[in-house]
Amino acid sequence: MKQFTSVNDVEDISQLVAAALALKESPYAHQDLGKNKTLGLVFLNPSLRTRLSTQKAALNLGMNVMVMNMDKEGWALETQDGVVMNGTTVEHIREAAAVMGQYCDVLGLRSFPKLISRDEDYNEDFFNKFIQYCGVPVVSLESATRHPLQSLADLVTIKETWKGTTKPKVVLAWAPHIKALPQAVPNSFSEWMCRAQAEGMLDFTIVQPKGYELNEDFTPGAHISHNIDEALKDADYIYVKNWSSYKEYGKVLTYPEGWMLTNERLKVTNDAKVMHCLPVRRDLELSSEVLDGPNSLVIQEAGNRLWAAQAVLKDVLESL
Amino acid sequence: MKQFTSVNDVEDISQLVAAALALKESPYAHQDLGKNKTLGLVFLNPSLRTRLSTQKAALNLGMNVMVMNMDKEGWALETQDGVVMNGTTVEHIREAAAVMGQYCDVLGLRSFPKLISRDEDYNEDFFNKFIQYCGVPVVSLESATRHPLQSLADLVTIKETWKGTTKPKVVLAWAPHIKALPQAVPNSFSEWMCRAQAEGMLDFTIVQPKGYELNEDFTPGAHISHNIDEALKDADYIYVKNWSSYKEYGKVLTYPEGWMLTNERLKVTNDAKVMHCLPVRRDLELSSEVLDGPNSLVIQEAGNRLWAAQAVLKDVLESL
Amino acid sequence: MKQFTSVNDVEDISQLVAAALALKESPYAHQDLGKNKTLGLVFLNPSLRTRLSTQKAALNLGMNVMVMNMDKEGWALETQDGVVMNGTTVEHIREAAAVMGQYCDVLGLRSFPKLISRDEDYNEDFFNKFIQYCGVPVVSLESATRHPLQSLADLVTIKETWKGTTKPKVVLAWAPHIKALPQAVPNSFSEWMCRAQAEGMLDFTIVQPKGYELNEDFTPGAHISHNIDEALKDADYIYVKNWSSYKEYGKVLTYPEGWMLTNERLKVTNDAKVMHCLPVRRDLELSSEVLDGPNSLVIQEAGNRLWAAQAVLKDVLESL
Repeated sequence: MKQFTSVNDVEDISQLVAAALALKESPYAHQDLGKNKTLGLVFLNPSLRTRLSTQKAALNLGMNVMVMNMDKEGWALETQDGVVMNGTTVEHIREAAAVMGQYCDVLGLRSFPKLISRDEDYNEDFFNKFIQYCGVPVVSLESATRHPLQSLADLVTIKETWKGTTKPKVVLAWAPHIKALPQAVPNSFSEWMCRAQAEGMLDFTIVQPKGYELNEDFTPGAHISHNIDEALKDADYIYVKNWSSYKEYGKVLTYPEGWMLTNERLKVTNDAKVMHCLPVRRDLELSSEVLDGPNSLVIQEAGNRLWAAQAVLKDVLESL
Repeated sequence: MKQFTSVNDVEDISQLVAAALALKESPYAHQDLGKNKTLGLVFLNPSLRTRLSTQKAALNLGMNVMVMNMDKEGWALETQDGVVMNGTTVEHIREAAAVMGQYCDVLGLRSFPKLISRDEDYNEDFFNKFIQYCGVPVVSLESATRHPLQSLADLVTIKETWKGTTKPKVVLAWAPHIKALPQAVPNSFSEWMCRAQAEGMLDFTIVQPKGYELNEDFTPGAHISHNIDEALKDADYIYVKNWSSYKEYGKVLTYPEGWMLTNERLKVTNDAKVMHCLPVRRDLELSSEVLDGPNSLVIQEAGNRLWAAQAVLKDVLESL
Repeated sequence: MKQFTSVNDVEDISQLVAAALALKESPYAHQDLGKNKTLGLVFLNPSLRTRLSTQKAALNLGMNVMVMNMDKEGWALETQDGVVMNGTTVEHIREAAAVMGQYCDVLGLRSFPKLISRDEDYNEDFFNKFIQYCGVPVVSLESATRHPLQSLADLVTIKETWKGTTKPKVVLAWAPHIKALPQAVPNSFSEWMCRAQAEGMLDFTIVQPKGYELNEDFTPGAHISHNIDEALKDADYIYVKNWSSYKEYGKVLTYPEGWMLTNERLKVTNDAKVMHCLPVRRDLELSSEVLDGPNSLVIQEAGNRLWAAQAVLKDVLESL
């Protein structure tokens, strides 16, 4: 791979999942691959799982890692062309990206959406310019509209845990939150699940209150529902996640009661495993009884972030 | 050792001190021990000595190190169970700790007390939950009530410098400050010195103004004094430190003059060596003339933080 | 070298430039040199290029690197002697520097001027005290008055790109900005160019509006001009940079129009290459057409920061 920003950058998702699970068995088998290679991790927003798992993945491969919190250690970047920079931005992304590319063999980048202009966020202007100007492979650590390292780890977790003989039913279920959150995680999860569904690996449903439908570009072939009771029926995996509205962009809309997953709700499922990308707000997005119960996969899923990142970095290193 | 949070986690303190001094002689003798092992250093509060010395100690042992400033790079953690997380906390310590344990073989944690509720601080709720949920060995980088890496370095420094044939007299002497400081350093120092006294290594006295007495759980067998003149008499080591009141919890009480150590005060001692954990406020906590004079051990003591941390990490690695 | 804080610490600048270019050819040829050596990078101000290039340079030499953002991760340092520290400073530089020297074999330090008192800034009090107390070699990552790693990279870039048979004409050209910037970069560039001019390597001119003349200590032998049209005539290299006034210290003075470099202005030059230390404010300090055009060296120049830092660190390691 020359870049990893969405499922579309991956030729064979089954092979990538298999590579991640193989690395989980033999974490240090490819340390020569990263020798004298440097990964720069550039954060414009906070990170816990993504930073630590990607850093550890690179170390496992023998790479050096340099972490740059641009929001804390650096300064504001300009992304628009043709503006006189007499305001608050100190450096243009054209220079900043190109310079980071001078010191790093691979760059990871995290940049959240502003949730103000839908066009601006969904253009992925910042990400695309960074890729254009830095001149080295870029791995997304979450962009305005996608979080593919998370989605790969999710698919790895489903693959690792599914012991059934038929295709599992996977449900992405909207959950309540008090803040307006990006659509990056659900977009990306949907994109990966739709691809897996198209390849016959699973059956995929999205359920959300009216007004919370995702951008259809990310949901080709998904079963779309607004009825939480029906959608969860016979589910094998429930992926719980809040997101703000795409239609009324970035808004938190009113919704009927009953969208927080509880043990009671699990009864209609096929003893479904419960997933969440974390961080999760307990008893708001997801009940403590489910999180602390036997159906929760959230810690195993977070652990698999490491192997997903390592599989991606290994592939990128092999293409250098 | 499976964890290092207090002197009670150490089976043989003499042996640990000897190990630290041996590492000072041969810093790179155990680099295979840390190969492919990762230390995560998690800070909820600022750190200079502890961060750099522990990071360097891990590097000396061949480990990888990932530093996470949760207060700057991350977000606020919830520690209470059973609360609906619709406030300012973004993630529960149950998930955050468990996730960090997925990426690290050993975790170091710093978390200061709030100095509001004595019970809350002395319960060490945050630290205990972190240990409970992370699933890997934890090394304290200073908790609400203890700073054992500092105390071990202090004991190493006494052992390294004492050339007398009898037991040295060690005095922990309260000193003035303008802010309300935790009791972690004096609690921990006292705990280690009481243990050393019980093993016949030294004689230990604590002197402070009335109202500044430490929690008795940390001072078993210590000579307690409120008279600075008497306490310093014939002292071989004076450990200078401010702390806020334990009784009137977290308060800065009034105190009589004469508690800042000067060369004049040193005259009654046995040419006592002077120690302080640093950072120190010059001419408020401790006079510049003492700090810059021949009796000060403060830089050597800070340097020994490295060997103390390395001895602890070596022991933890050997138990993995 | 025992320290690297200005061109005066360098015995032979041609040899250092040659060493940097040799490292660019063979980055990993000296990895044994840094084995078990630790570089501490201490920042009191933000950094992008300097941090990443110096960190990467150290990694190329096999060193370990510990980064300490004192302004974000640490606390305020006291530099004055003889003050009772009952204010906002938490630790004196005497202790802080000495302690960092205990854990690191080499220290890098960045500390900007306050631009309030010219004497205070030009005394380099903070830097000199840090060097005095830390006890290990110090590499400047930019001080109040100089940025020698940048200037070395600049000279490397000129040496690398100059294909003429005569001495190139190098012009340092003041440029507009909305903020009051330090004189460190132009001071340092001038100091290095004056040394190179004295050694017959090039011809050096400084051009600025009236009132913006640099401290003469940094400009021995430079041609000084206030006429941008005349100064740029037949130039081979133009080094564009804003700085605040030295005479009316730290002030942004009024200046006539026409100081921003454009393609039109380049016509009088000898097809001059254009340099800038970055970050640059587009279309305020320097026009986008020049930055994006064929005459710009700014990214190559930033890339050479790596080899400049590596040459300096190699020299310092050889002197340990």
